[in-house]
Amino acid sequence: MSFSPFDHPVLSGLLGDDETARHFSAAAEIEAMLVFERALAEAEADESVIERKAADAVVAALKAFKPDMAGLKAGVGQDGVVVPELVKQLRAAIGKPHDKAAHFGATSQDVIDTGLILRLKPVISHLDATLAEVIERLAGLEARFGSRYLMGKTRMQAAIPITVADRVRSWREPLMRHRKRLDQQRGELLVVQFGGAAGTLEKLGDKAASVRAALAGRLGLGDAPQWHSQRDRLADFANLLSLITGSLGKIGQDVALMAQTGGEIQLRGGGGSSAMPHKQNPVAAEVLVTLARFNATQLSGMHQALVHEQERSGAAWTLEWLILPQMVAATAASLRQANTLAGQIEAIGS
Amino acid sequence: MSFSPFDHPVLSGLLGDDETARHFSAAAEIEAMLVFERALAEAEADESVIERKAADAVVAALKAFKPDMAGLKAGVGQDGVVVPELVKQLRAAIGKPHDKAAHFGATSQDVIDTGLILRLKPVISHLDATLAEVIERLAGLEARFGSRYLMGKTRMQAAIPITVADRVRSWREPLMRHRKRLDQQRGELLVVQFGGAAGTLEKLGDKAASVRAALAGRLGLGDAPQWHSQRDRLADFANLLSLITGSLGKIGQDVALMAQTGGEIQLRGGGGSSAMPHKQNPVAAEVLVTLARFNATQLSGMHQALVHEQERSGAAWTLEWLILPQMVAATAASLRQANTLAGQIEAIGS
Amino acid sequence: MSFSPFDHPVLSGLLGDDETARHFSAAAEIEAMLVFERALAEAEADESVIERKAADAVVAALKAFKPDMAGLKAGVGQDGVVVPELVKQLRAAIGKPHDKAAHFGATSQDVIDTGLILRLKPVISHLDATLAEVIERLAGLEARFGSRYLMGKTRMQAAIPITVADRVRSWREPLMRHRKRLDQQRGELLVVQFGGAAGTLEKLGDKAASVRAALAGRLGLGDAPQWHSQRDRLADFANLLSLITGSLGKIGQDVALMAQTGGEIQLRGGGGSSAMPHKQNPVAAEVLVTLARFNATQLSGMHQALVHEQERSGAAWTLEWLILPQMVAATAASLRQANTLAGQIEAIGS
Amino acid sequence: MSFSPFDHPVLSGLLGDDETARHFSAAAEIEAMLVFERALAEAEADESVIERKAADAVVAALKAFKPDMAGLKAGVGQDGVVVPELVKQLRAAIGKPHDKAAHFGATSQDVIDTGLILRLKPVISHLDATLAEVIERLAGLEARFGSRYLMGKTRMQAAIPITVADRVRSWREPLMRHRKRLDQQRGELLVVQFGGAAGTLEKLGDKAASVRAALAGRLGLGDAPQWHSQRDRLADFANLLSLITGSLGKIGQDVALMAQTGGEIQLRGGGGSSAMPHKQNPVAAEVLVTLARFNATQLSGMHQALVHEQERSGAAWTLEWLILPQMVAATAASLRQANTLAGQIEAIGS
Repeated sequence: MSFSPFDHPVLSGLLGDDETARHFSAAAEIEAMLVFERALAEAEADESVIERKAADAVVAALKAFKPDMAGLKAGVGQDGVVVPELVKQLRAAIGKPHDKAAHFGATSQDVIDTGLILRLKPVISHLDATLAEVIERLAGLEARFGSRYLMGKTRMQAAIPITVADRVRSWREPLMRHRKRLDQQRGELLVVQFGGAAGTLEKLGDKAASVRAALAGRLGLGDAPQWHSQRDRLADFANLLSLITGSLGKIGQDVALMAQTGGEIQLRGGGGSSAMPHKQNPVAAEVLVTLARFNATQLSGMHQALVHEQERSGAAWTLEWLILPQMVAATAASLRQANTLAGQIEAIGS
Repeated sequence: MSFSPFDHPVLSGLLGDDETARHFSAAAEIEAMLVFERALAEAEADESVIERKAADAVVAALKAFKPDMAGLKAGVGQDGVVVPELVKQLRAAIGKPHDKAAHFGATSQDVIDTGLILRLKPVISHLDATLAEVIERLAGLEARFGSRYLMGKTRMQAAIPITVADRVRSWREPLMRHRKRLDQQRGELLVVQFGGAAGTLEKLGDKAASVRAALAGRLGLGDAPQWHSQRDRLADFANLLSLITGSLGKIGQDVALMAQTGGEIQLRGGGGSSAMPHKQNPVAAEVLVTLARFNATQLSGMHQALVHEQERSGAAWTLEWLILPQMVAATAASLRQANTLAGQIEAIGS
Repeated sequence: MSFSPFDHPVLSGLLGDDETARHFSAAAEIEAMLVFERALAEAEADESVIERKAADAVVAALKAFKPDMAGLKAGVGQDGVVVPELVKQLRAAIGKPHDKAAHFGATSQDVIDTGLILRLKPVISHLDATLAEVIERLAGLEARFGSRYLMGKTRMQAAIPITVADRVRSWREPLMRHRKRLDQQRGELLVVQFGGAAGTLEKLGDKAASVRAALAGRLGLGDAPQWHSQRDRLADFANLLSLITGSLGKIGQDVALMAQTGGEIQLRGGGGSSAMPHKQNPVAAEVLVTLARFNATQLSGMHQALVHEQERSGAAWTLEWLILPQMVAATAASLRQANTLAGQIEAIGS
Repeated sequence: MSFSPFDHPVLSGLLGDDETARHFSAAAEIEAMLVFERALAEAEADESVIERKAADAVVAALKAFKPDMAGLKAGVGQDGVVVPELVKQLRAAIGKPHDKAAHFGATSQDVIDTGLILRLKPVISHLDATLAEVIERLAGLEARFGSRYLMGKTRMQAAIPITVADRVRSWREPLMRHRKRLDQQRGELLVVQFGGAAGTLEKLGDKAASVRAALAGRLGLGDAPQWHSQRDRLADFANLLSLITGSLGKIGQDVALMAQTGGEIQLRGGGGSSAMPHKQNPVAAEVLVTLARFNATQLSGMHQALVHEQERSGAAWTLEWLILPQMVAATAASLRQANTLAGQIEAIGS
């Protein structure tokens, strides 16, 4: 199946990003869940909630554990989440008497939400590094061509001459603010979710806070109170993804318009056409517009999911699964293509 | 990569539909493009635009043709569409002297848009059949339990008693209208797109209309003037997909609310929890709400893509690729889960 | 207050449409509700549900009835709908003994939904007439300039020459389909809503269907089973509004691009600038793009409102109030501006 | 006209907020523009760009200036923005010889964008104060009822008992983060926009930066480089508005569900029904859901507007006008209703 171009063996050449894709394979997703289960067992042993030898048994079993994927697929079809079946398989692999030590006090949402955060951590570093690269390339264009002239355009009509630096700065400055926003969000977003059945960690009694802190520490995440039904961090992150693609979309639209009128920009390596092999289509520029409009569309769904009823909304949570990963993919692809495009610009202005 | 749950080897157990997925694999997509190329060569031979033996050479080469997928991926990265590279590979397979007879007078958009329509044809039949099944199951529930009582609820408060038939009819009637809408759209949507470089079929001279009609006939599609920059049919189809999931979402929301209060509905086979194995979660009902909100979100993007500038908008067209297939997937999954849910209802009302 | 430019005493010069605004004043809205109440009383007298003299008393009181607007505002703040307070005021105006004859068997949703449909009826005629005018003006341009040449553009790059007729037909054909769609929807949409407290017309017993049919007849609407919780007709209508603005947005985008490059189009009467009085901004063209993107955004909300729980969802229904009227406004404004723009085109092509 | 319930003389009783409405009347909007023109003349005199007596003439004329609203409406219909006509009227009021001193070096976007920011400043203070009040009321509920029990619900099914404090904290914590976000954005958002015809302040030469700083200082706003085509601050603010309404929507949904099942919450002052006067509808709770879904829908449009081509996009900018004010209105109304709702809660839990 390749319903999404981000997952498509061919279209991902245009719309994909390999580094990000590594973290959004089913294998990486399950691996992150198992990392959670291992760290949980260890943290619970640290805090004497389970026995150390039970934790050791969990850790040992996890080393060799290969989930039965067909079973997981059937499980998620039944339960709406993969975790009950995954835990069942894992406990079978652990065997008596320590099987119940695995996943103790946790629930599906802890595993899945924290598993997502674990994968977002390197993804955010990648996005930030790629964003820095775009900014640097734009600064390079500004250094080389900044003093040349362009016709400034307002309401799609010639206004007065501006410099290339004026135009390129309008591209670069929002990206610099986005890096600052990414830095501000990082600490807030990269936190553990651990709440148990209804968010109260009721099975851990007075050790709830210390186990959660130990778990966060072992996972390299920040500690935070349970946020299972508080989805504002994810919606805010989605907003930042769409701000990034929106700002890159403005660059793409400008470049496509400059390429159309001729003389304002020289691009190499544009795309060909099956009917007109001579054409040099500004494919990377267009894709930036596409991905901006895609993320702007998706963001609405992430905000709809803020209406997350009671202690866990199956409906709203599953909606996030359908949207957030692809917003990440779109952002990574957009940054990749922005770098491609910046590298294709041989000259701007006159 | 599994950015989309519809493509996910595990989550598709919840959010997938096998029958629809068959038509949205990369292989099926390319196969449909090649079906277009074969029919085009044959139609052009029928109308003496190319020689019959040239068409025979195209058809013969297509029988054995296996595209180089890595090459296609690189090609789409360069050109923004797969067709230039696909045609290049195909022409190499045909060899001299008939290589240029393939894809004669056509452009990427003809291949991709018509390839999509070819795959939507069986998908629409499948959606319609599944919709009919949901309607029938609801009618069955109405026949069995229709005269029982439910507390009618307005503004989430008890109002006055109604019958089960009153509630179930409010579920069923929109679905019946959707079947009528699907029937109305079918003839309008399932038409060939064939326009050449800029939509004018300029290479075919006075044979443009007859080749297009012959092509449509060979493909089992309706004939229609070129619609490469007129995307209203696709946006209208997307609307119908979202009407279907929206109406099913209302059913899901109602069932989840009935299941919450207890006594109003008996469901079997609900989902379990990793923390609370005794629970019977109304997973199928929740998923109907999720998919309704997903499609409602996506529809906005399909309508943004109506602003399709000039003779072909790379930006707007690519946006459709990112959205429409997943709307189809969501609709098929919603219909599948609606049937599951209808089958899980053991009793309604009292 | 002028939160919406459609309501704004100044901005409505750009974004408004007087004919449509007439039907979306608070006064027109309340008047339509009172038309419903009068027709209901008469229909119930026709069917002997209430006494003829009671109906006469209702009709007589309605003639002189002037609602207390401050009271209505306070009422809607309390009840979430205006109808309880409006009916209270109306019954006070009728006085004993016939006061209870007013609104007999009806509920708020009957009054508000049917009141909306009553106002949509002339609005649809207006939209259709304006759409016909746009089509005619485009046909006029095609007749005058159709054989001239334009450079066809694909992916924002010059492709091959096309004729003006090719371009204008791509503008006109979707509009012709939209008129057909409007015609198909008219009969489906312009129907009465009458269901009583929970949609069962329980107070009317075996006269429910005949009263509803009589009510529909007196209102000049079609008769239809209660659709209080079935919102597909309204979402489908919203889709059509956005299809119209989307197709006009494509025209606007094309014209703005043509005006930018110079030589392809001659426009008179463009907008001036406070900084550059010499400019001729293609304001009407830009506004078509704006309104297309606006309606594409709003449509998502109308589809979210399809998840209308139980017999009446206060949450989903109120969401429609926030969105649908402005989609109508946007469509009317877009059609008005499309006609303005078509009239500004002095020449196309060369 | 009352296309928007936020502008509606009756529906604003439910969906309005008087304090915010004051800043979004047409009169307040024009007043803010004139405040800009006065401060600009004074700042330009401070920096010797215009003569002091010219500035005095501008200031004197502004004191008595009453724009001709019909003229403004016609002007915006022609120019797409009100400023050319407004400046023309203002210059006529100033008269020779100082008329050209008004608006010197500025353009429409400076006036309108800065005018918006001037009005957002008190609005943000109001939103923050109202948000603080909601947080305080929720803390009060937690203090009074926090130790009582509620049945925790996951996937709309009973899970395990939780305390009222657990539930109320899940409502309150996101709101506390939103106050922090509002504080972070305030400094970034409340900055002057001043760029002239194409954003380069070309008429001010080497005094551009000092005039801009002086203008900002006189307006009580931060100074910032021109951001006319960089719309990320506004999109980010829109995101925060929707985060607020989304989090309040979750509260509303929870309360409506608690009110449905009975026994979990006691509300006073619910809404009545025209058909069932005994009902106590949780109107304020429902409206919170409505406004959450409304803003989630609108946010998409604000992000579409990030694709703001070249130095000024008429299309994208006008889209902001159609969306952002109503998002502000929705947020203010939601906060007002959240306070109403919190005040209606007489008891939670058992």
